Amino acid sequence: MINSDKINIIRYKITIEYIGTHFSGWQKQNNAISVQEAIENAIFLFTGQKIVVFAAGRTDSGVHALGQVAHFDLQQRRGDKFYNYEPREIIRAVNHFLRPLAINIIDCSIVSYEFHARFSAISRAYLYKILNQSCKNIFLENRVWWIRKNLNIEAMKEGSKYLIGMHDFTSFRAQNCQAKSPIKTINEIKITSQDNIINFYISAPSFLYHMVRNIVGSLVLIGEGKYPPSHIDFILKAKDRGKAGQTAPACGLFFLNVKFS
Amino acid sequence: MINSDKINIIRYKITIEYIGTHFSGWQKQNNAISVQEAIENAIFLFTGQKIVVFAAGRTDSGVHALGQVAHFDLQQRRGDKFYNYEPREIIRAVNHFLRPLAINIIDCSIVSYEFHARFSAISRAYLYKILNQSCKNIFLENRVWWIRKNLNIEAMKEGSKYLIGMHDFTSFRAQNCQAKSPIKTINEIKITSQDNIINFYISAPSFLYHMVRNIVGSLVLIGEGKYPPSHIDFILKAKDRGKAGQTAPACGLFFLNVKFS
Repeated sequence: MINSDKINIIRYKITIEYIGTHFSGWQKQNNAISVQEAIENAIFLFTGQKIVVFAAGRTDSGVHALGQVAHFDLQQRRGDKFYNYEPREIIRAVNHFLRPLAINIIDCSIVSYEFHARFSAISRAYLYKILNQSCKNIFLENRVWWIRKNLNIEAMKEGSKYLIGMHDFTSFRAQNCQAKSPIKTINEIKITSQDNIINFYISAPSFLYHMVRNIVGSLVLIGEGKYPPSHIDFILKAKDRGKAGQTAPACGLFFLNVKFS
Repeated sequence: MINSDKINIIRYKITIEYIGTHFSGWQKQNNAISVQEAIENAIFLFTGQKIVVFAAGRTDSGVHALGQVAHFDLQQRRGDKFYNYEPREIIRAVNHFLRPLAINIIDCSIVSYEFHARFSAISRAYLYKILNQSCKNIFLENRVWWIRKNLNIEAMKEGSKYLIGMHDFTSFRAQNCQAKSPIKTINEIKITSQDNIINFYISAPSFLYHMVRNIVGSLVLIGEGKYPPSHIDFILKAKDRGKAGQTAPACGLFFLNVKFS
C-alpha cells in the first residue's frame, strides 16, 4: 500500500528566466498576466494539478529574471503504479506549455519538504544595467536604463561603499513597502562596465521594496556629478526617501540568483 | 540666384541598426514592411520628400543589422533662404518617425555625390551567432541559432581556413542567386566563443546570396563531428550546393559593417 498523504507529494525546485516587460510582475494581479500565473497554468496543463508556485523574490512589473528560483508540490503521477514526474520532463513539458511567453524553466530538481524558495534563501543578488551612450540601442530596448549623459563610474563605486553592511535603509524604501523593519544588510555592491554598459551587482540576504532601484537612482546622481560620493552617506543618514534619487526604471533590473542554506 | 539642379541636392550617408525579425528584409516586398520602406516613409514624414534609400547590403527577412550603411539625396530645406538638413537633425527626426519600429539611425553625415552605399563599398562584414547550450535562452530568442549539441570550435576554425581567399563558391550559393559569377574572395573568417555563444565573423568584398548562412551551416557539420575539417575543401571543390550543409537560419545573422574606399 502507498500512503498517499506522505509518499505521493513531491517538492520541486525550479530556476526560471523571464523577460518582465509584458508581465504584471511575479505576483498575480488583476490588470495583466503574472509570471506566477503563467507557470501555474503551464503546470496545470501538463499535470492536471492546480498548484501554487512560491518564488524567492517577487519581482515587479517590467523586472527581468536570469535566475529566479521557485518551488511547488506535485502529486505523483498515477499509472500502473505511482511514479514521479522527472525533473527533465518538467522542464520540457512546462516550457512547451509556456510558449510563446517569454518565460523559460532552465533548471529543475527534486528537493526535500524543508526547502522553501522564499524562506530557505540566505541571499539574493540583483543586476542593474545602464546603457551609457548618446544614442539608443534597439537590441537593448527594455533591457537597460538608457542614460545619455556620461556617468563617472569611479565616483559611483566610491559612493556605493557607504551602503555596504547593516544600515537603516529608510531613504531607499518605497512608501508602500510592507517590511516591518527598514534595517537591511548589503553584502556586496560591484560596479563594472563594458561596451558602454554599466552593471550594478548588489547582493543582500533580503531587500526592501524598490531598494535596488532606489540605490541605483541615487548612485546615478553621483555619477552625473550632481553630488560628491559622500552624499550617499548623507542620504542614508537622513532616513528620508525625499533625499534619495529617483527610482531607477524597472526595465534595467534583473533578478540574478539566490543562495540557499 | 540658386541653381536648384546642382546646389540644392545634398547626399546623406546613414548607419543603421535594426532587428530583422518582423521585417521582410531590406528590400521592398509585397508581403511585409521592409526596412527600406520604413526609412523612406520616416524621411518623407520629416521632409515631405519622396526619396529612395540605397543600402550597402540587402539583408533577408529575419536578418539583423548592427551597422548597415545607406545613402539618399535630399533637396535643401526652403526657409527664408535654402539650408541643409543637419545630420544630427536627421538622426533625431527620422528616429522619431521610425518609432515604434525596431530600426535606429545611429550615425549620419553629408557625403559627396561620388559616394554610393552599394558601389563605393570595398568590403562587408557579417557576424553569425550560435547559442551552443542544452537549454534555450529567451533573452536571445530570434537573435541566435540555438544548437543543443556541443560543437567543436577548433574543428570549425580548422575547416574555415579552406574558405579564405578567392574561390568558386557555387556550393555555398542559393539557387536563386542572381550574381553573374560564383567567384568570390573571403578576406577573413574569425570564430570566437564566449558564454556559450559562438561568433562567426566573415568579411569579403561581396557575397553570393545566402553565402554566409550556407558557410555557417557547413561549418556546423564539422563542429558536430559529422565530417573532418577537410570536408570543407571537398564541399568547395564539388561546386555543388547539394554537398554543403543546411542554410543556417536568418535569425543568427547580423550585418556588421561596411568599409568604403
